[in-house]
Amino acid sequence: MIKNIIVKDARFPLKGGAGSDAVHQNPIYSYTVACLYDDKGNCGTGLAFTLGAGNELVCAAARFYGEKLIGKDLTEIMASFGDWFRQRSDEQQFRWLGPHKGVVHLALAAVTNACYDLWAKQQQVPLWKLLLNLSPEQLVNTLDLSYLEEVLSRKEAIDMLAEASDSRNTREQILQNGYPAYDTSAGWFNYPDEQLEANCKQALEKGFRALKLKVGSRNPDTDIRRANIVRNVVGPDIKVMVDANQQWNLPQAISIGKRLADINPYWIEEPTHPDDVLSHKILADALAPLKLAVGEHVPNKVIFKNYLQTGCAGFIQVDAVRVGGVSEFITVSLLCKKFGVPVVPHVGDMGQLHQHLVLFNHIGMGHEALFLEHIPHLREYFVNPASIVDGHYQTPQEPGSSCDLLSINSFAG
Amino acid sequence: MIKNIIVKDARFPLKGGAGSDAVHQNPIYSYTVACLYDDKGNCGTGLAFTLGAGNELVCAAARFYGEKLIGKDLTEIMASFGDWFRQRSDEQQFRWLGPHKGVVHLALAAVTNACYDLWAKQQQVPLWKLLLNLSPEQLVNTLDLSYLEEVLSRKEAIDMLAEASDSRNTREQILQNGYPAYDTSAGWFNYPDEQLEANCKQALEKGFRALKLKVGSRNPDTDIRRANIVRNVVGPDIKVMVDANQQWNLPQAISIGKRLADINPYWIEEPTHPDDVLSHKILADALAPLKLAVGEHVPNKVIFKNYLQTGCAGFIQVDAVRVGGVSEFITVSLLCKKFGVPVVPHVGDMGQLHQHLVLFNHIGMGHEALFLEHIPHLREYFVNPASIVDGHYQTPQEPGSSCDLLSINSFAG
Repeated sequence: MIKNIIVKDARFPLKGGAGSDAVHQNPIYSYTVACLYDDKGNCGTGLAFTLGAGNELVCAAARFYGEKLIGKDLTEIMASFGDWFRQRSDEQQFRWLGPHKGVVHLALAAVTNACYDLWAKQQQVPLWKLLLNLSPEQLVNTLDLSYLEEVLSRKEAIDMLAEASDSRNTREQILQNGYPAYDTSAGWFNYPDEQLEANCKQALEKGFRALKLKVGSRNPDTDIRRANIVRNVVGPDIKVMVDANQQWNLPQAISIGKRLADINPYWIEEPTHPDDVLSHKILADALAPLKLAVGEHVPNKVIFKNYLQTGCAGFIQVDAVRVGGVSEFITVSLLCKKFGVPVVPHVGDMGQLHQHLVLFNHIGMGHEALFLEHIPHLREYFVNPASIVDGHYQTPQEPGSSCDLLSINSFAG
Repeated sequence: MIKNIIVKDARFPLKGGAGSDAVHQNPIYSYTVACLYDDKGNCGTGLAFTLGAGNELVCAAARFYGEKLIGKDLTEIMASFGDWFRQRSDEQQFRWLGPHKGVVHLALAAVTNACYDLWAKQQQVPLWKLLLNLSPEQLVNTLDLSYLEEVLSRKEAIDMLAEASDSRNTREQILQNGYPAYDTSAGWFNYPDEQLEANCKQALEKGFRALKLKVGSRNPDTDIRRANIVRNVVGPDIKVMVDANQQWNLPQAISIGKRLADINPYWIEEPTHPDDVLSHKILADALAPLKLAVGEHVPNKVIFKNYLQTGCAGFIQVDAVRVGGVSEFITVSLLCKKFGVPVVPHVGDMGQLHQHLVLFNHIGMGHEALFLEHIPHLREYFVNPASIVDGHYQTPQEPGSSCDLLSINSFAG
């Protein structure tokens, strides 16, 4: 039985240019933290990620959703979580503010993720294991597949999971090897050239085989110069991703994208406005075979469906602390599997939650184990920070989804 | 000089099934009301519309934007309002919560609309007149055309307005005749058949030549029965629009849409999820020549651009109290003119603000004067309620945008 929910506003200023991109010059990493307490002394922690002052709006909205859980039996809710999720996301009092996007959807993510964390803690297993233990039917019961009918029916979802289940043992080795990571913190926007060069060398020494560079400067020559620095340092075999954080309009993206092709980027991330599916399609056609990555700011499964239908997304970066939580993350991952597009999450959670989800996507759904973004700047604040060894996430073994925060956990339920 | 801003949370419960649709069973019409005070004793009132408890989140966000106006000169801000608007809509502290959608964008609408209202009051003219008095360059300076470069350049926008300006006098007669209205309140979702029938008769008696019926029932036969009642009462010459409020998935929309074609609806409104541009395209192709109307829940110019690019929207229902206010409404109206699609706003403002905007769209931009939605349920709360005579909005003559509310105006600045 769920006894109480407390929502906390947690802010973590970063130092020395860390986290900077073409939009955010002085980012304050912020979490809406939903703490869900049961009557057995368990506390489920669910995060939504934001950047700064707006976090308090998300906290207020999360309290609204969270109160609807009090007095309920979690096992019952999780047995048909897809229904619960759809009811909450269509709440009369909040639906106008979306639907299914922005403050209200971020808030629903925090509460949803707290449910999954508590569910796993009650069963004393890590979240990846809980998800793998569910039957295809049980798993699909946690999803809301509405507005996807023409591309993914319930039966098709169950069949996909059942089929992947048959070949699981060929993919379970990753639990020992660890899931590959890529380094986002080599090339933040405000890092000077010397620091960028040093960071790239350090990334290689740490065992990373892929890293990211922030672009989207007012002067495209700056982007090209920095991209060349990175490629020169890491050599031809390391994957280099460039991330424009939506700073380009379509004509700019076409022009700069063609110039960046010279350094052979593995993808171009968020080239333009995240709502602009058709511009991404035009851009993808113009830059092919260079691929685009999108998803960090895409709020829900419906827009992801449109991205997949146009075929313009080479990589889908759905983030479980941006869309409506673990449930919608899995829904989008199923859509991607259907369309044959890899899922490489954006990690607003610093990879804490996503290290579980990508293991499930690979083992339970048959997605390729490409790599998972790694951002270390908040590791000192987590109770069980993700552990990266030789460029690989070590499989988490503690019960839950690894989202407990030291500063939050000291509050009593 | 702007001296102060006060943001009020105004709620208006409706009675007897009024305002009900397939999503909202007991709607509470709510306004975030931004009151902007200058040092001459003027108060500019700007609205954003929501439905219920979430309104307080929008109010909190509006205070954040509004405070940035204090101490500023309004004339200076309005001289390049497009720049101000872009800066605000990309504010680091709030951008992650959108961008350009949901709570933060609604909040920006309230503040933006207060600026336009105050601007018109300072010049002692109604807003429609203020907009018509601007030169094409001045008007385009109030717009943010970013992310539209491939379809609408600044020069093209100015040229379109200049060209429309040459033929203005042929369209100014509407100021005397009044802008045609259509009746939304005949067919709310929860009205029983007898009330529906009586309302339709009453609408005809009041001079309306077009009215709307809410559909999207769990049982499609209910929709068909009600649609037939309406058509039988009003006869073949009256325009009947049906509004599904997003309740159908794509297969349902195709199936029910084909059945509804029998009563010859003028449009089908919000047939499915408002983010699902591609499903609207598939549906429009399946139901042609029947046309779709979308926009009530479309948050910004970028998504409207995609709707226009696919050609699936027969009518664009952009709402200036849903997108980022008057400025973005005009931007979207220019896009529609470029693509040859009529603008028929959804009136979250009950038509108070939009009666000004459609006059500008017709006279200043050359849009067809089709009709404007009319919803009378809040008229007792406005200082200058819209006046409908023989099915036509009477041209407002008071200074400003007609958005002052009686309950709010009693507060001192």
